[in-house]
Amino acid sequence: MEERISVVLASGRKSSVYIASNTSELSARLSSYGANVLWVMDEHTSQLLRPLPPIHVILEAGEPSKNWRNVEIILRTAVQEGLARDAAFVGIGGGVLCDMTAFAASLFMRGCSLVLVPTTLLCMTDAALGGKTAIDYMGGKNLVGTFYPARDILIFPELLKSLPEGEYVNGLAEMLKHALLTEDESLYRTFLTKKKNILDRDPVLLRTLIGLSLDVKAAYISRDPEEKNGIRQALNLGHTFGHALESLGGFRSWSHGAAVAWGIGRALEAGTMLGLTEPRFAAGAQKLLAMYGYDMDYRIGRGEWMQFRQNILRDKKKEDGHVHFILLEKQGIPIRRMVDEQMIQALVISPPLKK
Amino acid sequence: MEERISVVLASGRKSSVYIASNTSELSARLSSYGANVLWVMDEHTSQLLRPLPPIHVILEAGEPSKNWRNVEIILRTAVQEGLARDAAFVGIGGGVLCDMTAFAASLFMRGCSLVLVPTTLLCMTDAALGGKTAIDYMGGKNLVGTFYPARDILIFPELLKSLPEGEYVNGLAEMLKHALLTEDESLYRTFLTKKKNILDRDPVLLRTLIGLSLDVKAAYISRDPEEKNGIRQALNLGHTFGHALESLGGFRSWSHGAAVAWGIGRALEAGTMLGLTEPRFAAGAQKLLAMYGYDMDYRIGRGEWMQFRQNILRDKKKEDGHVHFILLEKQGIPIRRMVDEQMIQALVISPPLKK
Ligand SMILES: NC(=O)c1ccc[n+]([C@@H]2O[C@H](COP(=O)([O-])OP(=O)(O)OC[C@H]3O[C@@H](n4cnc5c(N)ncnc54)[C@H](O)[C@@H]3O)[C@@H](O)[C@H]2O)c1
Ligand SMILES: NC(=O)c1ccc[n+]([C@@H]2O[C@H](COP(=O)([O-])OP(=O)(O)OC[C@H]3O[C@@H](n4cnc5c(N)ncnc54)[C@H](O)[C@@H]3O)[C@@H](O)[C@H]2O)c1
Repeated sequence: MEERISVVLASGRKSSVYIASNTSELSARLSSYGANVLWVMDEHTSQLLRPLPPIHVILEAGEPSKNWRNVEIILRTAVQEGLARDAAFVGIGGGVLCDMTAFAASLFMRGCSLVLVPTTLLCMTDAALGGKTAIDYMGGKNLVGTFYPARDILIFPELLKSLPEGEYVNGLAEMLKHALLTEDESLYRTFLTKKKNILDRDPVLLRTLIGLSLDVKAAYISRDPEEKNGIRQALNLGHTFGHALESLGGFRSWSHGAAVAWGIGRALEAGTMLGLTEPRFAAGAQKLLAMYGYDMDYRIGRGEWMQFRQNILRDKKKEDGHVHFILLEKQGIPIRRMVDEQMIQALVISPPLKK
Repeated sequence: MEERISVVLASGRKSSVYIASNTSELSARLSSYGANVLWVMDEHTSQLLRPLPPIHVILEAGEPSKNWRNVEIILRTAVQEGLARDAAFVGIGGGVLCDMTAFAASLFMRGCSLVLVPTTLLCMTDAALGGKTAIDYMGGKNLVGTFYPARDILIFPELLKSLPEGEYVNGLAEMLKHALLTEDESLYRTFLTKKKNILDRDPVLLRTLIGLSLDVKAAYISRDPEEKNGIRQALNLGHTFGHALESLGGFRSWSHGAAVAWGIGRALEAGTMLGLTEPRFAAGAQKLLAMYGYDMDYRIGRGEWMQFRQNILRDKKKEDGHVHFILLEKQGIPIRRMVDEQMIQALVISPPLKK
């Protein structure tokens, strides 16, 4: 298993990403971490590993379980098993499980080793790399957490076979976002030409795509490991619009990925209206997103505007009172711009433009 | 108020230490942090500040309160008051309060600003500087925590006036440790010649002494901010012996400072027996510690040895199975050495050597 990507992140910690060609490498690799290891899984991902390793915890799955109670279960098990600072925590699961395992690892004895084995597409292509750890707190997403990069990130695209379809499509949206955030054409072009293989989860193709997607993320986060100079913010492309939509639907009507894809569409249109975004690029990108089934033509009802507006403001008010968005000049060239309220309104409630 | 010390620590964060000549500078300085501030105090230290700032929490005092429940009170208040990533937490108190406030600051929105106003001698001279944050967990001290250096550390020696005598003497032990850990004679010499003024808590003299003491700590921690290369371990001088003794007394018979002073004595004697420590230096240092009232001649009873031995092993077993101690070749030259069990026994239970 070869190192595919290596990035130096928060506290000078290096994260190495390995992308395996098949799962037979999994057990060999995992057993290489020795005995001083706590394995953390959720009720679904624990099915992927047989036999279960000696020291393990199995947590509930799902966003509501991303809380301190579960982090404490990890910490308590580590203490009860007599693990110390030289131990490693290995998290096997999606973003929820990996965020919690990483958070716990950053706290145990002020930081032990951390290995992540992402098992959702979103986590393979995005969440596992970057050092952000968190739990949700008092209704706020990721309100409590640390920056603590994993030492190793082990990716086995074959594990995606058992992933529910909705979760798979969820991850595609963040990959498409990465495709738009790089000047390198490879990712964009593959999405354009290999739709069937991608939707069929062809593990060989996914190996390439996940690598390319992580290359894009790595380029941004390595220049801004602790989100301090604005560079990392580019990765929020589509997220301010998307999050306001998710929230409008009570986090039930829209999946995160579908909302982000829609948000990217709104950002492309905002850029076009402001004369910032190349219209041809914007049209092409909208079409690519629509090709993967995302509803780019959706608009909110007039009666929903006040709530949507409030969601946007709440999301952003903490910065400096103005609402800034990530827009794209063209492929790979993000730019942060204020968009005034009237334009936001026009973008989200006007009828879809004729294509 | 001038910056007295500046050290770059974990994650490249800079800590600036200010040592004030009188408390009149306190309120001016504190109001400079603006409105976006959460003040954290304990039931005793909240008496030092009048009027109380608008957004504050007052926690219970004492080591048993160094737990997640209190950290959560800090976090919850921050969320309820609508604070965001640009907020600052200001902790006013001893090591317990500062460790918890710093821990909470490191977690809130993955890290907000942190200012510490240490109010015990131990915290002024040791705990507030260095970036170690923690809570106790499942009976283990500092088992859960982070590395998160304070941006500013504001020291007002006059605040020590109200500190109980036992707490004051507790802090002196860590200062004396620092005096032995530097080749610079100033701190050692002042302890030797100014006993009365020191015990009288002369704020002008303390200003100098605290500065010198922090210089020593700064020199070690700046070369090893996250305790990774062994340099920072030198600051554990006296702590392995001392901790085993505290534990033997159920953490009631011995204060931390008195136990550490005794432990330094044992380390000096170990070094002398091994032919590593200059005998004249060792004798002088033992005498200096005794001068400040620490019981350097104490030995444990034969019947206590098995428990003491176990305490030492539990403290150390996690490293590599061997028991290493910090010894001193001479003033300012620490060295890490294995000491075998028989010698440990001789050091702690044999009758005191004639002086
Ligand atoms: N740390 C970061 O930088 C970062 C970035 C993006 C998102 N996130 C976080 O990630 C979380 C979302 O993660 P997610 O989308 O992976 O969802 P998830 O972790 O909730 O996983 C989705 C579901 O799929 C199941 N599952 C996982 N792998 C499976 C597999 N191979 N086969 C069958 N079922 C499987 C899980 O048990 C769960 O029920 C959010 O909490 C978000 O905040 C973090
Ligand atoms: N972070 C580090 O690097 C580090 C280093 C050493 C010790 N520590 C931690 O520090 C803690 C011990 O700290 P401590 O010795 O300061 O004890 P402490 O914080 O428990 O304070 C002792 C008592 O004095 C009271 N007090 C504080 N200031 C006062 C004042 N000016 N007037 C009157 N009363 C006052 C407190 O309320 C408390 O009751 C331990 O938990 C230890 O783990 C941390």
